[in-house]
Amino acid sequence: MKNIVLKIREDVLSQGEAALFAITKEVDKIALESFIYKVPQNIKIDKNLAAAIKIAKKNIEKFHKAEYKKLYKNNKIETSPEIFCWKKFTPIQNVGLYVPNGLFSSLLMNVIPAQIAGCGKIIICTPPNPSQEILYVCRLLKINKIYTIGGAQAIFAMAYGVGEISKVDKIFGPGNEFVNEAKKLVSCEVAIDMPAGPSEVLIIGDENTKTYDAIYDLLAQLEHGKESRAWLFSSSETLIKNVQEKIMAEIKKFPRQEILQKSINNLVCKKFNNIVEALNESNKIAPEHLILNIKDAENYLDLVKNAGSVFVGKYTTESLGDYLSGTNHVLPTSGFAKSFSGLSVLSFGKFITFQTTSKQGLESVAAHVATMAKAEGLNFHAESILSRL
Amino acid sequence: MKNIVLKIREDVLSQGEAALFAITKEVDKIALESFIYKVPQNIKIDKNLAAAIKIAKKNIEKFHKAEYKKLYKNNKIETSPEIFCWKKFTPIQNVGLYVPNGLFSSLLMNVIPAQIAGCGKIIICTPPNPSQEILYVCRLLKINKIYTIGGAQAIFAMAYGVGEISKVDKIFGPGNEFVNEAKKLVSCEVAIDMPAGPSEVLIIGDENTKTYDAIYDLLAQLEHGKESRAWLFSSSETLIKNVQEKIMAEIKKFPRQEILQKSINNLVCKKFNNIVEALNESNKIAPEHLILNIKDAENYLDLVKNAGSVFVGKYTTESLGDYLSGTNHVLPTSGFAKSFSGLSVLSFGKFITFQTTSKQGLESVAAHVATMAKAEGLNFHAESILSRL
Repeated sequence: MKNIVLKIREDVLSQGEAALFAITKEVDKIALESFIYKVPQNIKIDKNLAAAIKIAKKNIEKFHKAEYKKLYKNNKIETSPEIFCWKKFTPIQNVGLYVPNGLFSSLLMNVIPAQIAGCGKIIICTPPNPSQEILYVCRLLKINKIYTIGGAQAIFAMAYGVGEISKVDKIFGPGNEFVNEAKKLVSCEVAIDMPAGPSEVLIIGDENTKTYDAIYDLLAQLEHGKESRAWLFSSSETLIKNVQEKIMAEIKKFPRQEILQKSINNLVCKKFNNIVEALNESNKIAPEHLILNIKDAENYLDLVKNAGSVFVGKYTTESLGDYLSGTNHVLPTSGFAKSFSGLSVLSFGKFITFQTTSKQGLESVAAHVATMAKAEGLNFHAESILSRL
Repeated sequence: MKNIVLKIREDVLSQGEAALFAITKEVDKIALESFIYKVPQNIKIDKNLAAAIKIAKKNIEKFHKAEYKKLYKNNKIETSPEIFCWKKFTPIQNVGLYVPNGLFSSLLMNVIPAQIAGCGKIIICTPPNPSQEILYVCRLLKINKIYTIGGAQAIFAMAYGVGEISKVDKIFGPGNEFVNEAKKLVSCEVAIDMPAGPSEVLIIGDENTKTYDAIYDLLAQLEHGKESRAWLFSSSETLIKNVQEKIMAEIKKFPRQEILQKSINNLVCKKFNNIVEALNESNKIAPEHLILNIKDAENYLDLVKNAGSVFVGKYTTESLGDYLSGTNHVLPTSGFAKSFSGLSVLSFGKFITFQTTSKQGLESVAAHVATMAKAEGLNFHAESILSRL
């Protein structure tokens, strides 16, 4: 796989657009005349789905705008007399989003914070023949143009700039193993959102947890892909026993049973003496999603040290956050929740620090700066201060 | 070089502590009995330097604490009726800091935000025989123990955990090419602070800029290393002419002339019609440090789109921020200021998102979530909601 991705990079770098057309013909079996796809004015999708998407948009916007408000205001701090320091949230100018075939929820979760951050140019790549749902979300978010390029070739096009697609500063979005390998390869040259890994859920339950709440939350995670992972940590032996007895019969309920037959092997159930012990172990795993389906769940929140997103109480299923609670569903996996945050407005900008001072301000610290600089052997650092006085 | 670093990794992984001792003997020419270095109670350093370091500590703390205050408070947002979402800044539990030989300012810049963030364990590695200044800063910051391991081997020890050094979640700190290569290698397994590159400054000047202000700021940057880079953008031809005429004579003033003889070749001077054009070009470079040594500098700040840290006005030299203005001196280089922030309290923590709802809250959106999930082919996502009602 790695060699195929390296070959795709070589082709894109050496042949530019021609390579993109050739690869699309080979992989997607489509002979495109252009990658530029103008989003039509009127898109017809199911009325209920349209209503649901609008609510998701509203909630995601509401939550992410609250973050932006906090980011933006930064007061000047007078650290020493007449030395003022501050920082300013500044959007990343050019961002590239990869959207896998039909994943319209991913489009919402990436574009909304990018637009709130104020990114100058938002380039979207998705495989040819985008679904009506993708086009509907584009229209709703006032995106008039997307690029119908899929796979690793889309990542390279955005990383290096090809034809009408200009080089971006940061690349976002999920994808298959080819896309993830391409993102890894370009990450020395442009920023990427976060390391990719299979999706995960860890459920903590107790004697009050309903068996089918746990079963469906586990299966909801495991239906994502054969590599998806799930843990059930419980202070109740009975819950584990019931889940283990009944989960296999449920697998066949819906079309994705082939995936589930594989991923069910990644389910780990474990009994703990109490919730605190279960949480300590959960912190070592740092799950992407943590569901606290336990009594008085809110009392345990301070013990959560590592997790992507937390679902508190028996009515808060992961699906809620996957689609429309308002939090972002792009979250760190494979233990990276120990050090990475999920996607947010912050991911689409950076802080620039500023400082300013007057002659008096400089004078009051000049000797100190010069002393420190000389102690590190950096004489011109000292000179740049002393010569100004 | 890459092969040497790969060999070091192999040795550390296969032989553990024994490899660390062997490499230290070979590279540092020191036969250590232990890497554990207890910081003595009383460290004597120059009185003026001690006073300067205390002021730097105070200012860095003041600026970074202001950030922490903003990060910490996050209100619950009610996105839909009875659906509450919030996020919480949570420290990274285990962080590892690499401190090159004697670079006590780097120790201040890394440890202070780590301590403010509330990191559980802060592991510090620095080459054997730490300087008195390093030990003084340790004592000042209440660090009682460090590990005297240098180079790539220190990075691998922190990434994988060796002997008393436990595996960390994120690795920080500058280093030579071996250290940077090691950080790159481990970055698929643990987080690292940011991509490393040579230090840079871009100065924007005009007819008011004093020639020697520009010269010493350029040389202060170029004295860091042979790869250091500097730009002088000016709306005044005279300034460029004066700098070019006089800078070579200054190089010999201090001991680091061998470095400067090389790095001076990385100086680029360019005339612009006006400050706005110079700033537009600066944004394309995204310099680590941007000095605005121009009249009414504060009027141009909104035009700064990409930079690590900005020094506003003729008295604000870069040295000020390098040591004690209070801003962090660990900044993105090589164009990464387009997408990365400098080091801050945020670098030592992550946001965990939370959501909770009631039965009524779930009921009000259940049909919407189910519709969206089914449209993406994820039936158990729908089932996990519907079965709860």
